[in-house]
Amino acid sequence: MLTIANRQLNSRLLTGTGKFSSASLMQSALSASGSELVTLALKRLDLGQRQDEILPPLQTLGVHLLPNTSGARTAEEAIFAAHLSRQALDTHWLKLEIHPDQRYLLPDAVETLKAAEVLVREGFVVLPYCGADPVLCQRLQEVGCAAVMPLGAPIGSNRGLLSRDFLRIIVEQARVPVIVDAGIGAPSQAAEAMEMGVDGVLVNTAIAVAGDPVAMAGAFKLAVQAGRRAFEAGLPATSSRALPSSPLTGFLEGI
Amino acid sequence: MLTIANRQLNSRLLTGTGKFSSASLMQSALSASGSELVTLALKRLDLGQRQDEILPPLQTLGVHLLPNTSGARTAEEAIFAAHLSRQALDTHWLKLEIHPDQRYLLPDAVETLKAAEVLVREGFVVLPYCGADPVLCQRLQEVGCAAVMPLGAPIGSNRGLLSRDFLRIIVEQARVPVIVDAGIGAPSQAAEAMEMGVDGVLVNTAIAVAGDPVAMAGAFKLAVQAGRRAFEAGLPATSSRALPSSPLTGFLEGI
Amino acid sequence: MLTIANRQLNSRLLTGTGKFSSASLMQSALSASGSELVTLALKRLDLGQRQDEILPPLQTLGVHLLPNTSGARTAEEAIFAAHLSRQALDTHWLKLEIHPDQRYLLPDAVETLKAAEVLVREGFVVLPYCGADPVLCQRLQEVGCAAVMPLGAPIGSNRGLLSRDFLRIIVEQARVPVIVDAGIGAPSQAAEAMEMGVDGVLVNTAIAVAGDPVAMAGAFKLAVQAGRRAFEAGLPATSSRALPSSPLTGFLEGI
Amino acid sequence: MLTIANRQLNSRLLTGTGKFSSASLMQSALSASGSELVTLALKRLDLGQRQDEILPPLQTLGVHLLPNTSGARTAEEAIFAAHLSRQALDTHWLKLEIHPDQRYLLPDAVETLKAAEVLVREGFVVLPYCGADPVLCQRLQEVGCAAVMPLGAPIGSNRGLLSRDFLRIIVEQARVPVIVDAGIGAPSQAAEAMEMGVDGVLVNTAIAVAGDPVAMAGAFKLAVQAGRRAFEAGLPATSSRALPSSPLTGFLEGI
Repeated sequence: MLTIANRQLNSRLLTGTGKFSSASLMQSALSASGSELVTLALKRLDLGQRQDEILPPLQTLGVHLLPNTSGARTAEEAIFAAHLSRQALDTHWLKLEIHPDQRYLLPDAVETLKAAEVLVREGFVVLPYCGADPVLCQRLQEVGCAAVMPLGAPIGSNRGLLSRDFLRIIVEQARVPVIVDAGIGAPSQAAEAMEMGVDGVLVNTAIAVAGDPVAMAGAFKLAVQAGRRAFEAGLPATSSRALPSSPLTGFLEGI
Repeated sequence: MLTIANRQLNSRLLTGTGKFSSASLMQSALSASGSELVTLALKRLDLGQRQDEILPPLQTLGVHLLPNTSGARTAEEAIFAAHLSRQALDTHWLKLEIHPDQRYLLPDAVETLKAAEVLVREGFVVLPYCGADPVLCQRLQEVGCAAVMPLGAPIGSNRGLLSRDFLRIIVEQARVPVIVDAGIGAPSQAAEAMEMGVDGVLVNTAIAVAGDPVAMAGAFKLAVQAGRRAFEAGLPATSSRALPSSPLTGFLEGI
Repeated sequence: MLTIANRQLNSRLLTGTGKFSSASLMQSALSASGSELVTLALKRLDLGQRQDEILPPLQTLGVHLLPNTSGARTAEEAIFAAHLSRQALDTHWLKLEIHPDQRYLLPDAVETLKAAEVLVREGFVVLPYCGADPVLCQRLQEVGCAAVMPLGAPIGSNRGLLSRDFLRIIVEQARVPVIVDAGIGAPSQAAEAMEMGVDGVLVNTAIAVAGDPVAMAGAFKLAVQAGRRAFEAGLPATSSRALPSSPLTGFLEGI
Repeated sequence: MLTIANRQLNSRLLTGTGKFSSASLMQSALSASGSELVTLALKRLDLGQRQDEILPPLQTLGVHLLPNTSGARTAEEAIFAAHLSRQALDTHWLKLEIHPDQRYLLPDAVETLKAAEVLVREGFVVLPYCGADPVLCQRLQEVGCAAVMPLGAPIGSNRGLLSRDFLRIIVEQARVPVIVDAGIGAPSQAAEAMEMGVDGVLVNTAIAVAGDPVAMAGAFKLAVQAGRRAFEAGLPATSSRALPSSPLTGFLEGI
């Protein structure tokens, strides 16, 4: 059971709504994922219009919404977006994203901390997307963020846990949940993150652009469960030499 | 469905009987793994004695046996062991292992090919443990092996797919099933192998020496399913830059 | 030729004074390294005392000094240390280090940017040690830092370029010199950094604690030259298949 | 000093003659590399013709020739090629290459061992190209090969030491020189191999197809020297935590 800000979640797999080829495919994939917390960009919502395609499927699924501030380049823009989203979606949960660079979408540490501080004071439940920076994660935690969301690799790159050595330090030091937020491109990578002891992973692109998004969502669901179970079961140590699993002597004695 | 030599298996996770702290723990773990094909060393069997501890649990589980020639250092020794095991266990299935080196237990390519040729002619269903050597795998296939079992890393090292780049070539070229046989130390690594398109994995040490072997066996079961499903669903390509999963413009226009 | 703040350096290998077993060994090793810019902690200097052991060898070598603020946990402490060092060493060059965490010595992005801004205004030539965070490097550059010094791995860990994927982005975007500052534990790693196009590397621990620090310093000197030359010569692309360097047909035609 | 079959070589960098855009460029690059042992395919020689372009530059350089059997698919073909090359080039040194697969050019373990045994008996100095297979390397050594030449990655792929974990075992066990033969695509990779304790590396493609082959040859020369020197100087251990190179207390006491 994953608990963020007193909300209990059965699934440690968070998902998103981007890049699906249709709203119905999105609905089927999110359903297969078992995800209970789904992020969406404000822009995805056609506020106040009937044609909106994203929100009804999410409401049908009964998932919790985690609006994000994707597109914000400064703390000021992110705070503005947060206010809009709270009003539009009637939730004070927020995935805080600030990325001035449009090529790699990497987060801005300084602006993110600044915005987090303001938004926590205003009563938001803030989950900040950030670099795999252990010191920054400490500071985000200190200003009251409900979780930290360090990246594995650039958003949408599907390159996995490029930052694994730094994620390990974050996990070791964190007192709030750690959710790996970007770069996970295959179920094995999600499992690896869970085996390291992170509390959850957010996967969007790798599901949405898979050949079969519904099957891939199911694969991620299993992989996250596998990784968590392995973490709890206690992974064995690695060895630089071989250790026989079968005995090496005996039957040949009779030769 | 994995088919080896006309035998159909629902589970793509092969397991072994080594290193468990008790026979009952072994039974529970193998049951949780869902494995239908289990390797065991001849030495594990106390041939002709009632006190034998390994065989009854396997018979209870109803799994297929895959006796191995662990401990053999030459083709001759392996062939001798094969004959013994066929007699003792009433199966002509055989995991062929020849490793003259006792420190790293790495297989001997030349002796393995030589023994495989003989044993196939004698009617054995031969699954050879071998290095991740694409040319050797071709030759083992050509002499009639029912599958090839290249290693990921030294036996019992839990170091994962150190040979991944060569495994990829083996998968690309093989016309018999490819089972990754040694080195897999975590469910994420099993999932990664399956995502690459291997047909199955054999895991023993990582389950047997886990803190909780039964839970770990379950984790591997899920991970193998996840990896296979992801392979079939079509994994997305990786990218060296970021690709936004959320749109990057729009909501800020009103500022 | 590496140019930082109008100072031209023939050597792209920066070094440090920590961890050597004696001052004379330090002098020999730094001499063998060919380094022209050497960092030292304020504490290493026994200010105002004749017995000081570190400074005279450096003066003998004729290297430029790059005092650092190692030990500072906040911007305020770093600024205080900077003032002390300017007074003591008569240089306005500064390696800015702020690391509140004593276990991993990872830098604090927010405090580092804050201190950099103040110190640049005060006329310091600021080279900040920072995480491999492309957005932060942009901001440090914007406030006037003379170079950026992202880490490869935690200080003294000798683990190499764990952050290589992010270093690549920093190199692509930077308009000031990029010096990889921590974690480089072997000449091959220094060469790899240079091949990626970084402008220099700083190596201290790997030289100081080597079996033979003087020989190791010479090895790093060669490796940095090799990596730079390879970068300039244009490295070939990698291929997922083989490309023969020898022709594959011909001589056998006569068989 | 590298000694193979009683021949002493000052350079641990072996090179080849393939893929250069002209014979004069080849000559300049090989000269810059400092290499004293150069491999060439039989086909490169226009036997008995005056127009031959490859041999005169090599004779001018005064390097030792190491003819190879590239293109051979079986032991029989390789032995035939060996006889031809001995006659044509007046040397009994031989780089034995047998690769039935034309896509990845990976060596055939069984045929290579078979040919090596014959050729050693016939008085050749045999240096076999082989997979990074520690058991095979033992056997090649036992039949009298003068060195072993395991691959890092497929020929011409420039992908580096994909086989590094197995190369380490080979180095640990070998009593003849170990030369990494294929896949090295950058000076840093050559340095890494040397740091692991291999006795030499063979580089051809990465030099020949570089933007500036002469400069790249010089870069490899330096990198091989750097890696060897670091191996001899004793590389420091790695650490999972940070170890300060500068002291962390002291100057702040006065605050």
